[in-house]
Amino acid sequence: MRLSRFHLHTSKETPAEAEIISHKLMLKAGMIRKLAAGLYTWSPLGLRVLRKVERAVREEMDAAGAIELLMPTIQPQELWEETGRWEKFGGQLLKIKDRKEAGYCYGPTAEEVITDFARSELASYKQLPVNFYNIQTKFRDEIRPRFGVMRAREFLMKDAYSFHLTEEDLGREYRNMYDTYGRIFQRLGLKFRAVFADTGAIGGSASHEFHVLADSGEDAIAFSSGSDYAANVELAQALAPGARAAASEQMRRIDTPVQKTCEDVAALMGIDLARTVKSVALTGEDADGQPQFVLALVRGDHVVNEIKLAKLAGLGNYRLATEGEIDAHLGSEPGFLGPVAPRAPIRVVADRSVAAMADFVVGANEKGFHLAGVNWGRDLPEPDEVADIRNVVEGDASPDGQGTLSIARGIEVGHVFQLGRKYAEAMQCTVLDETGRASVPLMGCYGIGVSRIVAAAIEQNFDANGIVWPEAMAPWHVAVCMINPKNDPAVSDAAQALYDELNAAGIEAVLDDRGLRPGAMFADIELIGIPHRVVVSERGLASGSFEYRHRRASEAENLDRAALLARLGVA
Amino acid sequence: MRLSRFHLHTSKETPAEAEIISHKLMLKAGMIRKLAAGLYTWSPLGLRVLRKVERAVREEMDAAGAIELLMPTIQPQELWEETGRWEKFGGQLLKIKDRKEAGYCYGPTAEEVITDFARSELASYKQLPVNFYNIQTKFRDEIRPRFGVMRAREFLMKDAYSFHLTEEDLGREYRNMYDTYGRIFQRLGLKFRAVFADTGAIGGSASHEFHVLADSGEDAIAFSSGSDYAANVELAQALAPGARAAASEQMRRIDTPVQKTCEDVAALMGIDLARTVKSVALTGEDADGQPQFVLALVRGDHVVNEIKLAKLAGLGNYRLATEGEIDAHLGSEPGFLGPVAPRAPIRVVADRSVAAMADFVVGANEKGFHLAGVNWGRDLPEPDEVADIRNVVEGDASPDGQGTLSIARGIEVGHVFQLGRKYAEAMQCTVLDETGRASVPLMGCYGIGVSRIVAAAIEQNFDANGIVWPEAMAPWHVAVCMINPKNDPAVSDAAQALYDELNAAGIEAVLDDRGLRPGAMFADIELIGIPHRVVVSERGLASGSFEYRHRRASEAENLDRAALLARLGVA
Repeated sequence: MRLSRFHLHTSKETPAEAEIISHKLMLKAGMIRKLAAGLYTWSPLGLRVLRKVERAVREEMDAAGAIELLMPTIQPQELWEETGRWEKFGGQLLKIKDRKEAGYCYGPTAEEVITDFARSELASYKQLPVNFYNIQTKFRDEIRPRFGVMRAREFLMKDAYSFHLTEEDLGREYRNMYDTYGRIFQRLGLKFRAVFADTGAIGGSASHEFHVLADSGEDAIAFSSGSDYAANVELAQALAPGARAAASEQMRRIDTPVQKTCEDVAALMGIDLARTVKSVALTGEDADGQPQFVLALVRGDHVVNEIKLAKLAGLGNYRLATEGEIDAHLGSEPGFLGPVAPRAPIRVVADRSVAAMADFVVGANEKGFHLAGVNWGRDLPEPDEVADIRNVVEGDASPDGQGTLSIARGIEVGHVFQLGRKYAEAMQCTVLDETGRASVPLMGCYGIGVSRIVAAAIEQNFDANGIVWPEAMAPWHVAVCMINPKNDPAVSDAAQALYDELNAAGIEAVLDDRGLRPGAMFADIELIGIPHRVVVSERGLASGSFEYRHRRASEAENLDRAALLARLGVA
Repeated sequence: MRLSRFHLHTSKETPAEAEIISHKLMLKAGMIRKLAAGLYTWSPLGLRVLRKVERAVREEMDAAGAIELLMPTIQPQELWEETGRWEKFGGQLLKIKDRKEAGYCYGPTAEEVITDFARSELASYKQLPVNFYNIQTKFRDEIRPRFGVMRAREFLMKDAYSFHLTEEDLGREYRNMYDTYGRIFQRLGLKFRAVFADTGAIGGSASHEFHVLADSGEDAIAFSSGSDYAANVELAQALAPGARAAASEQMRRIDTPVQKTCEDVAALMGIDLARTVKSVALTGEDADGQPQFVLALVRGDHVVNEIKLAKLAGLGNYRLATEGEIDAHLGSEPGFLGPVAPRAPIRVVADRSVAAMADFVVGANEKGFHLAGVNWGRDLPEPDEVADIRNVVEGDASPDGQGTLSIARGIEVGHVFQLGRKYAEAMQCTVLDETGRASVPLMGCYGIGVSRIVAAAIEQNFDANGIVWPEAMAPWHVAVCMINPKNDPAVSDAAQALYDELNAAGIEAVLDDRGLRPGAMFADIELIGIPHRVVVSERGLASGSFEYRHRRASEAENLDRAALLARLGVA
């Protein structure tokens, strides 16, 4: 492509409406243009990148044996009523009435449509297993669309749906898709993690999310240094620590007139935060369904995990206790709470790490005081329940026993689910099994946010000058820049010859023949993230050299033609 | 592709809801499945064909210098209000309200969106000319969607929009697109014609439609045997015939008791229909805007063209005359009307061919009688106006003076327009010209119905056994069919080896390894229209031969491996 015949429209301004770096850079580079809230036109430059992602996804899905089809974007209300999701899906479902007042929606996902297709087209076990996918525009009517294409309302998604007669077969395809997703993100040159995930609204049994790692990510991910283990921080198990040490201190009252947090108390006492215990007062239910006061204890340097807490008996619908309830049970006000000597019977739930502590610090249930040197069994009864109720932290042992955990932030770009029979059952989809009996198939579903990947890749790959594309996503691999081509036709001839040779060798090159000044030209080429830049100038040609610079390199180097071609991978 | 791992789902039943052959065959072949009225899922088989069309369109557009981008399917109401089309577009516009009650539509076309893009991105003449295109799902809420994907509500369209500073430059790009469309349809292997067209609702000056020729086409097209000339029958000019012959008969009354049509009168008299004249009574307006009775005359074998008629002075809003008006002016009842001796003053508009007639037959303005041997100037005054007011017919001289016209039916699959400044002006889109003055650009727009082409191609290419794909649109080029592979592993080995060799040579082959009986297998392969079929059987292998049959051939032939590969184009 000659840039003079392309439509490149970069901007020097940093757009005010953009909150995150990928949104800023996509607007500055002119990859996208906002049409309305959450609706973006992909410019020629942006589309080149989007298509690269799309192609990588398609080729890997094909290689994995999935079969592509194309479903309409508009879906009839009746199908969504069969599964009950017409009402349940919520406000993200864009509902539409046609000229005959018939109800439709713009598909945010396609479980209903594919199950309808399957109940018509799949009759026999001989047609299973099968995995249908489609790469199609989707719409979710976000309340607050933002971050550009990262959370747009209209977006490009690859969604796949597989059908199986047995759990084993579903598990096999699930693994196949899990592996395929790994290949896709690897091929795209992205650092990513597959994490155990909560299944959320779509339902089903097993589920993994694929996250592109980036500091700006919305989700915190715990992953092992010693294995493939990765999970959402909220779902990662915190292992039990070693055995409890013997008591070595006496329990004593500490004067903490204004110190209400573990951090403040530890600072006052000059001790490690890990020696303090945080007490969280809750109201749950006892075995008879009556309100029960619960004190949940985690180490001062840990955070209570509400998901884990809610899985404990009696805490399914817990809420924070009121000041009145706290006073009634502990005789204290918040900031000085503790499990020692409550005024009324309470239930104490201790995190595993708290249960293993000795000589710890807790609130004294008395305004202005904490207790130090506290020990289980001696100063207060053993906890009523010991459980994993905290978020994992950096350095925790990996739950699979291999290595320790690191925490990183991630952007969800893919998700694989085992749906089970939920949709097939609701929609009366059956196939005849080998014995001739009608059997409801099991389903898996596998999504990738194709347009979101573009933004996520930028969040992971940028510097002060702009985007730094991984090779596989770059709009072009090499930019051939001509300096003052009008002054010396030899410059444009040499640049053109190099450009032709690179393209002939299958390397996607772009020729910057716009006649811009070097500074403006280089700024554009850096901003749009081309991995390799070659400068053809009168001076260079005089010494038989080309200036080469990799997008990630701090310095340019002068190479002769042969060395340059070798560097660019031309044999 | 091995068919055992593909999802092929053909049907023996002829679907009752399908009215036209392409719809029937696409359903029988399992290329599409109806989701709701006018909404179709493209099955894996159908999508393979659709993608071939899409790729051909994309590659030719790229080669022509157009630049691809991707606009959202959902478009904001405000933009459509700027051009006034929010109200004017009519019921086909699918209007949508989002969760915040903001108005949107599902784009049926994208003039507004691209003009909005252009007014933001195009600032200078240096960026022109430019031609942006996108291949994207569109929606038109047809009152009566039918004929499958031929007139679906959701469909795939390629739409392109070009921007220019001068009429000349717009004309140049218009010609470029006209030529590109020719290359696209030629490459797809379709018989087509580019025809002059009425611009309809989109407006603008010049316009051509591209029609795939097929007997089932909705439009009649006149095209020259001797040149590129082609036009919609309704728009093709009927040239003036030669000079009028001298009168040779006397005017006489003919007894036509029940003969009210030219056909019946000609039959009764035993004369050529071309010697009769049809009189159509109309009410138009005179120069003062008063109702005026008009008799429009065309030859008995011709048809009045209402579009041409309405272009004449005073006939812009004509209607058929009432029986009362006819009686008042002609003193007769319908069936026996004529221009001779009216009761009150009338205006006579004669088609050019009628003006050139001598000794003709017309109604006598008396029930049960016609007049024969009628001659202009002698039996009645010369016509008030002589004009082209008929449809052309097969055998007419071509308006460009080269060859004669043939009539064929066509399916519109493409349309190129010169829009002029209509949209840019309404939306205040300007660019600075070379003198630094803000100038409203001229626009061209160029559409292709990508999904419609698939159906149109079938209408042109089928036989009793199913679809007969042109090579470029076939889902696969060669089907390698295995007969009883389980009986003889040599059969499956030989078939697999052939299949591998073909694919390695870049020929898209499909291996039918489903283990069906030959009859069922061949029926499928014919139905889905694979151009080349190769049968690998025990008997064939014994004699060192493969059975080969082209989809259009009536007989199969036995070829040895080398001859087979040569026939399939493997060097």
